[in-house]
Amino acid sequence: MKTIDAIVALAKRRGFVYPSSELYGGLGGFYDYGPLGVALVRSIKDSWWKTIVDLRDDIVGLDSCIILNPEVWRASGHVASFTDPLTECKVCHMRIRADQPVDVAAHEAMHRKAGIKTVEWTEARQFNLLFRSFVGPVEDSTSQVYLRGETCQGIFINFPNVLATTRVRIPFGIAQIGKAFRNEVTPGKYLFRVREFEQMELEYFVHPDQAGEMLAYWKNERFRWHLEMGLGRERLRFRQHEADERAHYAADSWDIEYDFPEWGFREIEGIANRTDFDLKTHARHSGRDLRYRDSQSPDPYYPFVIEPSIGISRMFLALLADAYHEDGKRTVLRLKSGLAPYTAAVFPLVANKPELASQARDIYVRLKQLFRTAWDDRGNIGKRYLTQDEAGTPWCVTVDYQTLSDGSVTVRDRDTTSQERVSRDRLNEYFGAKLSISAK
Amino acid sequence: MKTIDAIVALAKRRGFVYPSSELYGGLGGFYDYGPLGVALVRSIKDSWWKTIVDLRDDIVGLDSCIILNPEVWRASGHVASFTDPLTECKVCHMRIRADQPVDVAAHEAMHRKAGIKTVEWTEARQFNLLFRSFVGPVEDSTSQVYLRGETCQGIFINFPNVLATTRVRIPFGIAQIGKAFRNEVTPGKYLFRVREFEQMELEYFVHPDQAGEMLAYWKNERFRWHLEMGLGRERLRFRQHEADERAHYAADSWDIEYDFPEWGFREIEGIANRTDFDLKTHARHSGRDLRYRDSQSPDPYYPFVIEPSIGISRMFLALLADAYHEDGKRTVLRLKSGLAPYTAAVFPLVANKPELASQARDIYVRLKQLFRTAWDDRGNIGKRYLTQDEAGTPWCVTVDYQTLSDGSVTVRDRDTTSQERVSRDRLNEYFGAKLSISAK
Repeated sequence: MKTIDAIVALAKRRGFVYPSSELYGGLGGFYDYGPLGVALVRSIKDSWWKTIVDLRDDIVGLDSCIILNPEVWRASGHVASFTDPLTECKVCHMRIRADQPVDVAAHEAMHRKAGIKTVEWTEARQFNLLFRSFVGPVEDSTSQVYLRGETCQGIFINFPNVLATTRVRIPFGIAQIGKAFRNEVTPGKYLFRVREFEQMELEYFVHPDQAGEMLAYWKNERFRWHLEMGLGRERLRFRQHEADERAHYAADSWDIEYDFPEWGFREIEGIANRTDFDLKTHARHSGRDLRYRDSQSPDPYYPFVIEPSIGISRMFLALLADAYHEDGKRTVLRLKSGLAPYTAAVFPLVANKPELASQARDIYVRLKQLFRTAWDDRGNIGKRYLTQDEAGTPWCVTVDYQTLSDGSVTVRDRDTTSQERVSRDRLNEYFGAKLSISAK
Repeated sequence: MKTIDAIVALAKRRGFVYPSSELYGGLGGFYDYGPLGVALVRSIKDSWWKTIVDLRDDIVGLDSCIILNPEVWRASGHVASFTDPLTECKVCHMRIRADQPVDVAAHEAMHRKAGIKTVEWTEARQFNLLFRSFVGPVEDSTSQVYLRGETCQGIFINFPNVLATTRVRIPFGIAQIGKAFRNEVTPGKYLFRVREFEQMELEYFVHPDQAGEMLAYWKNERFRWHLEMGLGRERLRFRQHEADERAHYAADSWDIEYDFPEWGFREIEGIANRTDFDLKTHARHSGRDLRYRDSQSPDPYYPFVIEPSIGISRMFLALLADAYHEDGKRTVLRLKSGLAPYTAAVFPLVANKPELASQARDIYVRLKQLFRTAWDDRGNIGKRYLTQDEAGTPWCVTVDYQTLSDGSVTVRDRDTTSQERVSRDRLNEYFGAKLSISAK
């Protein structure tokens, strides 16, 4: 059955995701990407970057630091209010979030089982989610810094630099992919709520009068991207934030939610109208005039910002969940062919026939120049198919005895399991055409 | 003149590199990559990944966390000995490295100038370069963690996971690109010694008997890559570490050095024989048997590790320095065409002729599907060439009055400044061919 546990097990077994630091008992809320996982992550990032930066002429990229001057986080409001309420159990001194009744009840039930009748909690205090560190050889308040809690602040503080050194004019965007950190009190739900994660954020600067229209535009653009990535239309939906759940800077905020197995609909991307909150607050704190001016605008103004923001680990998990299928005895990851860690795998029918192995090897080496290609000559052909099905490899190429006589190989399709014979000299064109059809 | 200052100024002016957090007065040892910088960084990473992972069948990728279980750093020796000697000036309490006589003398000279005859220093103590932080809601020794000081430890601790979930067999490698952090006492030399940086590391596991031969192999492979990236042969050299400068884990260690303007030869990549130090130390600390076994090896053993390791910001700086040329009145970045942030720029000869602008726009939109392409319709054509020369754009395409009659455009070459007329319908093939020649 398609359960979260089944997906977690496949991700571990095939080298997509490992619990981080497993050798030392792990570390809560941290995961490493293995060989297949890093390939899928790279495909996600490349697709986003190509769509958002390379193919557009109104958006430029940026790569700012994880550790910024701490004034950035004081100005943005994170130092004061990027917090969760924390309470401590007076029995065992365990600390948990006070705003999660399910966790509180579970903790009390655990103690009552052990015979403790009354479980008391300390009054909740606000716990800041920014990771702290110190820069330089003195550890005190003047050297204290934070690991960024979101990548976008690095964009806002570079707004004047980008304007001064490029030819962008409003409306325009600045895009960034990079790590961010949140010291969650209780991380959980596998890749869904982690302490170290990678974001893909676009800050799109517009005239305030255009903010509503551009929010609608970006909602539409981003939804289309998720469909292009292969996520099922019926498992995606928009949800507008209620006024009381919006962040303090946002005038309007929408989530694109994915219908995860067991968990139901959960946010995978947020699209917010951040207004002019960030630029104004940085202007006030830095003493710099950050208003926008150009030849078309007689009066300088603070642009509004439309922000599509997505966490890579959530997107990764949605893609795995969407692709995961059990089909009789086999488990198959029906990832879109352009996203799959390997486009093709090449096998000799049996490993101990040198003439088959050497032909297969030749084909493998040639395909690898153009496509991510795997090699496998272990076990029997059925086992190799099962392995590649779980890796999401769309096509398996087998060199068999017929290859020796007529130069054709078997190409087996991951989703249909049907096989067809293709001339070994036509494989580049064959896969090229398949990939370009699937990219439509 | 090709000075470091001239390169720094160009990098700022064109949006390659900004001092990080400049809006708040900066932060020592941190730099952000702007729109052109992030494009060059992506090209460097993609080239490395393609060469090391995608085109090979003996190396797989990994993406591990920046924050690992702190036991990793106790095992690796970083907690005990990843240190620099630190001394404090008794006059002003400034702290600097005790092992840098030039810095010490400069500081003393500064005080003597101000009339202070004797400058005394505290006894040097060892200062640890790992950034510290805390995970979870309690800040004490049990929750203390470190930001990784090198990416390779995430590889070593995943050695058993990769062996269990992939088909790699010795000799094989695990490669990773990611951020690392060193709390340098005195960062400096622009991008050369920064506190937050990105590494590209390969850990290549070999039988101990093969270590010498494989070190030689990787020295050769890596040197070739630097040549392929376009660095001048005469500005590259190997330097073997003396026994007393090698890290405690290394049996032999070589630097690839680049001859920077003003600074002379400095390390841009290190290639070390790390022996079996890391796997053995993690085995001892974790209590897990990390010896390698396969059907060809009756006796399990600890493989040796050959490590080519390169910092992206140093490579970035070497590429800028190598490409930087002053040629009469113009400054030109002669980046290899495959690496340049933009492959081509498209202009209408003048902006206020709609028929030129619309044809130029059509060409721009079409080229952009295949190549990173810039658009410019401001100022005069000479200024646009100067801008693109400084951005390193190899070819500029101008739509002029002749285009309207015969469909040809002017293509101007960055390095020679020569121009030729090319049919606008042949531009895809034209640039495709130019790029593939330059990739040889």
